[in-house]
Amino acid sequence: MKAMKNGRVTIPTDLDMIEETKEIIDQWGADAVRDCDGTEMPDQFKNYPVKVYSNYYTTRKDNNWANKNPDEVQQVYLMTDFYTAMDDQLKIPIMKDLYKEQLKPNTINDIKRWWEVINRTTGEVVPVEAWDYNKKSQEIILRNPKKYHSYTVSFLAFIIWDPVHMYNYITNDWEDVEHQMTYDVRQPKTKAYTLKKLKKWMVENPETDVVRFTTFFHQFTLIFNEQRKEKFVDWFGYSASVSPYILKQFEKEVGYKFRPEYIIDQGYHNSTFRVPSKEFRDFQDFQQREVAKLVKKFVDICHENNKEAMMFLGDHWIGTEPYGKYFKDIGLDAVVGSVGNGTTLRLISDISGVKYTEGRFLPYFFPDVFNKKGNPIKEAKENWVTARRAILRSPVDRIGYGGYLKLALEFPEFVDYIESVCNEFRILSENIDGKKPYSHFTVGILNAWGKLRSWGTHMVAHAINYKQTYSYNGILESLSGMPFDVKFISFDDISENSDILKDCSVIINVGDAYTAFSGGKNWLNPLITSAVREYVAEGGGFIGVGEPTAYQNQGRYFNLADVLGVDKEIGFSLSSNKYNWSENEHFILKDNSSELDFGEGKKNIYADLETKVLKTSGKDVQLAVNEFGKGKSVYISGLPYSLENSRILYRAIFWAAGKDNEIKKWYSKNYNLEVNYYPASNKYCVVNNTYVKQETIIYDGTGKSFDLIVEPNDILWFDEE
Amino acid sequence: MKAMKNGRVTIPTDLDMIEETKEIIDQWGADAVRDCDGTEMPDQFKNYPVKVYSNYYTTRKDNNWANKNPDEVQQVYLMTDFYTAMDDQLKIPIMKDLYKEQLKPNTINDIKRWWEVINRTTGEVVPVEAWDYNKKSQEIILRNPKKYHSYTVSFLAFIIWDPVHMYNYITNDWEDVEHQMTYDVRQPKTKAYTLKKLKKWMVENPETDVVRFTTFFHQFTLIFNEQRKEKFVDWFGYSASVSPYILKQFEKEVGYKFRPEYIIDQGYHNSTFRVPSKEFRDFQDFQQREVAKLVKKFVDICHENNKEAMMFLGDHWIGTEPYGKYFKDIGLDAVVGSVGNGTTLRLISDISGVKYTEGRFLPYFFPDVFNKKGNPIKEAKENWVTARRAILRSPVDRIGYGGYLKLALEFPEFVDYIESVCNEFRILSENIDGKKPYSHFTVGILNAWGKLRSWGTHMVAHAINYKQTYSYNGILESLSGMPFDVKFISFDDISENSDILKDCSVIINVGDAYTAFSGGKNWLNPLITSAVREYVAEGGGFIGVGEPTAYQNQGRYFNLADVLGVDKEIGFSLSSNKYNWSENEHFILKDNSSELDFGEGKKNIYADLETKVLKTSGKDVQLAVNEFGKGKSVYISGLPYSLENSRILYRAIFWAAGKDNEIKKWYSKNYNLEVNYYPASNKYCVVNNTYVKQETIIYDGTGKSFDLIVEPNDILWFDEE
Repeated sequence: MKAMKNGRVTIPTDLDMIEETKEIIDQWGADAVRDCDGTEMPDQFKNYPVKVYSNYYTTRKDNNWANKNPDEVQQVYLMTDFYTAMDDQLKIPIMKDLYKEQLKPNTINDIKRWWEVINRTTGEVVPVEAWDYNKKSQEIILRNPKKYHSYTVSFLAFIIWDPVHMYNYITNDWEDVEHQMTYDVRQPKTKAYTLKKLKKWMVENPETDVVRFTTFFHQFTLIFNEQRKEKFVDWFGYSASVSPYILKQFEKEVGYKFRPEYIIDQGYHNSTFRVPSKEFRDFQDFQQREVAKLVKKFVDICHENNKEAMMFLGDHWIGTEPYGKYFKDIGLDAVVGSVGNGTTLRLISDISGVKYTEGRFLPYFFPDVFNKKGNPIKEAKENWVTARRAILRSPVDRIGYGGYLKLALEFPEFVDYIESVCNEFRILSENIDGKKPYSHFTVGILNAWGKLRSWGTHMVAHAINYKQTYSYNGILESLSGMPFDVKFISFDDISENSDILKDCSVIINVGDAYTAFSGGKNWLNPLITSAVREYVAEGGGFIGVGEPTAYQNQGRYFNLADVLGVDKEIGFSLSSNKYNWSENEHFILKDNSSELDFGEGKKNIYADLETKVLKTSGKDVQLAVNEFGKGKSVYISGLPYSLENSRILYRAIFWAAGKDNEIKKWYSKNYNLEVNYYPASNKYCVVNNTYVKQETIIYDGTGKSFDLIVEPNDILWFDEE
Repeated sequence: MKAMKNGRVTIPTDLDMIEETKEIIDQWGADAVRDCDGTEMPDQFKNYPVKVYSNYYTTRKDNNWANKNPDEVQQVYLMTDFYTAMDDQLKIPIMKDLYKEQLKPNTINDIKRWWEVINRTTGEVVPVEAWDYNKKSQEIILRNPKKYHSYTVSFLAFIIWDPVHMYNYITNDWEDVEHQMTYDVRQPKTKAYTLKKLKKWMVENPETDVVRFTTFFHQFTLIFNEQRKEKFVDWFGYSASVSPYILKQFEKEVGYKFRPEYIIDQGYHNSTFRVPSKEFRDFQDFQQREVAKLVKKFVDICHENNKEAMMFLGDHWIGTEPYGKYFKDIGLDAVVGSVGNGTTLRLISDISGVKYTEGRFLPYFFPDVFNKKGNPIKEAKENWVTARRAILRSPVDRIGYGGYLKLALEFPEFVDYIESVCNEFRILSENIDGKKPYSHFTVGILNAWGKLRSWGTHMVAHAINYKQTYSYNGILESLSGMPFDVKFISFDDISENSDILKDCSVIINVGDAYTAFSGGKNWLNPLITSAVREYVAEGGGFIGVGEPTAYQNQGRYFNLADVLGVDKEIGFSLSSNKYNWSENEHFILKDNSSELDFGEGKKNIYADLETKVLKTSGKDVQLAVNEFGKGKSVYISGLPYSLENSRILYRAIFWAAGKDNEIKKWYSKNYNLEVNYYPASNKYCVVNNTYVKQETIIYDGTGKSFDLIVEPNDILWFDEE
């Protein structure tokens, strides 16, 4: 097969890399060049037949402005550690364990209005008369605290070093680089200034085709400690999107008084794992709408100057989450984001309301990988093969790379491998041809966030795995490459209209108890439990992973224990004997080996007598199935991503959907390969997701089968007969 | 050394074992004989120089009475499984999965008053007008239930086969034995009848010296399923101590209306692991007082007939728990109980208010052990060596055995081994001489039950270990043989007077989150948290095991995270980076090997920066120490009983108490041996708790040390110099 020789690929460049950039443009078939944080765009590409992307920083790279307007430097709500009163006076050093070159307490605004001292033993706010702040020692002095009660201080601080700049500075060992301060585009002086500045920039940068905003106004929460190590990171955090100026507007809009606690949230800072409070939802909605409104002004300026506006998905992206309800109003041309795996690929590629999406693939050409001990090909291959599953379901329109081109060129085999990736990407783009691939049916992910966190569940810091999340992320990662439509549903969606469940053949609820992803207190709402029970009883499928539907209530830990056929023993029902521990064979396990990996799994799960247990680990059920009315359910304790686990989930979905007889359509008997069919082009492909040769039996859409051998990593395209 | 040749030992006998019994009396030095369930006392021991114990059954072995008085058969509150309404009518078969030969629904009393149908989705009681009971089909028919809500039925049933008789019947494969029905001594006709009957029995049984009550009126909860297997067992359960007759009295006393839910408790039946509700505490108090009052009448009859009254600790012992506040008023002469380990030995030997205690040692002479494949010596040795640690701290006054003597005689080596046990027991009893052994200081166990559950924490069915409890039982089992005074403290005790904490050098809180043993909602009470914090800050020691002080609240899972220096990540604070994972050397670990066994342990425990982490398992802290004010704390994820773990706890207690410099008093360097000192007799002993020869260094009370070799299992006695 012959590839399109050119297009769909963006590469980084730099002032001293002009000829080399041109060579790579030819070799990889690139059609766009970009600068990065730490590189500069050479003039030479002005008239070259490539698009020129220019990074644009709305909130930094202008310390002159920031220094002149200290009141409009960005702010963040912070909470101190917990301090126990042991005396008649309690001193709380508010900057303890915070990096003083990043953060500076805001004493410009009225601290008695915007700070809060809270008795965490009782939850009560301490009256402002009872405390003072010593600016010099940076301590709150609390008079006559309740003895042996625990206290915290919530306070506002200016972000005097942009966290992303600081991160890049530290990661790349920069030296003698001035710390870039932040400024808050939402505030009046800076808003006027930055809009004017963008207009000026437009005139000064005629060669730029695409303004790549990095990003807009509010950084996700990223706080460093005294050792310059990360202290708090939340890729979805709104804590750094605040200022008294904005909060007063918020108060006016919602009609109730703002409390720092709405942002502080007991020190959890409204982590995406928290079932969101009403006040936080209000604040998110307010911010998303207002940010979208202002971003539109920036975008309009680009369009007025015949440039495209591209948003980087990340960094200062708070308020512009692409699955939020105001995003489409912005009028952006494109979104580009970093691709860590299939899930993050889908996070980008499923965005609607833009003309195109672009995936930034790994590894970045940075010294942490491109050194004598590094293996950039291996990293690139893993990244590509993992993400390709998702591309075959929902392709990004473009791919690209970032970092220092110079570093990549020191690895010629890497350069050749990326050439093959670019060609493969163009072939599959051509074959998919922008049409929807065949989906067997729809699978719904039910949690407290729904659409807003499409492909963004269980994430702390982008695609980084945590011990507490990898066993759940596996579900999303598996789904990212599966032939199903995936719908993200919130409990509020069900409350509004439970018919939304009917669009799905299977509903999945995955996460730890009390978190936003399993759902917490939403499961105490009879409207929710009844709707899901009815859905299953009428023939729907339900898959619970981890601690689904959990919230201790009326004799149950899993509120849908009746549907799932399993519950968790938390100590209260030890007196009830449990007899159902024998493993059974089942449709779900037919393609797998006997040793399964449930990741962190869960302890103390037991099955009702009628439940069919499939796998246990001692006296802990790990996998079980149940029937409820006309429907079916599957319990899985955890399922880290692997091709084998992905197959378990695939079969579990078909079984739960009651479509076990239809599984052998567009199907590979060997779980290391997957089949995708594209009705619009009558093509289908078989993709080997491993690094070794694989043999399999392939079933086409009519169930006809044939033997096939596929080379390592290869993807084979077939015309439908 | 020469033993007392005779005394302190009780043996079983039977009609066909007269000569053999006499031989064993001589060989073991027994001074008492007893009958058992299934054996009979021969007349020949009337004038023999031994005490005669006779089992007396107050509530069974009289089917004639039970059949004639069906309204006074014992009753139990039961809850059905959860049933989900999917239609306009919901039928709930109340006897499903219950053994119909054991239980029979009580339809004599007004079911609309004494039964309850509950909507478990909302927690609401269903109005009695909405349901009916079909006697024939044994179904509740609920009209127009809320669709897809979950329902249960709470109902009263008669116990038509005594659970202990049934248990013995099944365990011993009895055949053609009439099922013994129960009758309720608390009810008017039966009360009069049984008192009269006891008086008559006194006259008919002049040879009896000790009336061994088995036990009194209310069986602990023991319910069998349709396969005659245990369905529900709670050694502390009050569910079978109810009847409308009694409940009306209870209502009158407390002044509020009784609800079945007070006993049903969402189906948890007020398991000892539940933080008890006010209503259940009220009911316990009522029952304990009323039962004690009536038991006293039985005891008085014994005394009037010059017989001793002995209570078997177990079976029908509800209301007579020896650590309850009315127990001492009964005037019992003795308590006898089964000894499963050190903890259960202390449960018996620490009882006050009786003249003597007796331990029934294992194995019972039953065919399950005394068969060709069994190894009764091994079982006896383990039982003895394990319990001996506790005897050296707080001896029972007598030991004894139960079962069929005939079976034991088939194992002559076993008979010889028990002879040595009896001799050893008499020697140590003589050396201890009823005086208090030396205690370094007092250790407090803090939970929701306090004194009432002295040595009875984390128990489901006597000394049986559960996956969810063995890691916590290890703490009690270790303590049962340690030279500390052990005090059981409840949260209510602290509320009444927090000075109770000052009696203790160390407070231990051990258990799973939300259970009665860690304490659940008690930790939301500022009075409790402040009292414990103050206690530690002023120099006290705090040891938390498992999920101590846990109850999600104001940013913390462990409410005393400040004291402990650790908390549990339950998903809300994943955004906060955690850096304290390095293991440190410590005083606590000085005697141990490097691999430690934390049993089930706990996942997701992390340490504050100032905390000293001692052991981790991946990113899970298992053991850590912290300082708080002048005091110290230790966190342990779990500690199953072993001699090595016992040493960890011992050193942790000394460290937490701030007495690490004093540990080498009455101390063995080798943790397989222990030292106990008896000031009254100026004797001390070194006991080898293992089955192999051990070398060690022994430190006496002045810190002087000497080398010592001790034979397997041996106990060596020394005079203090």
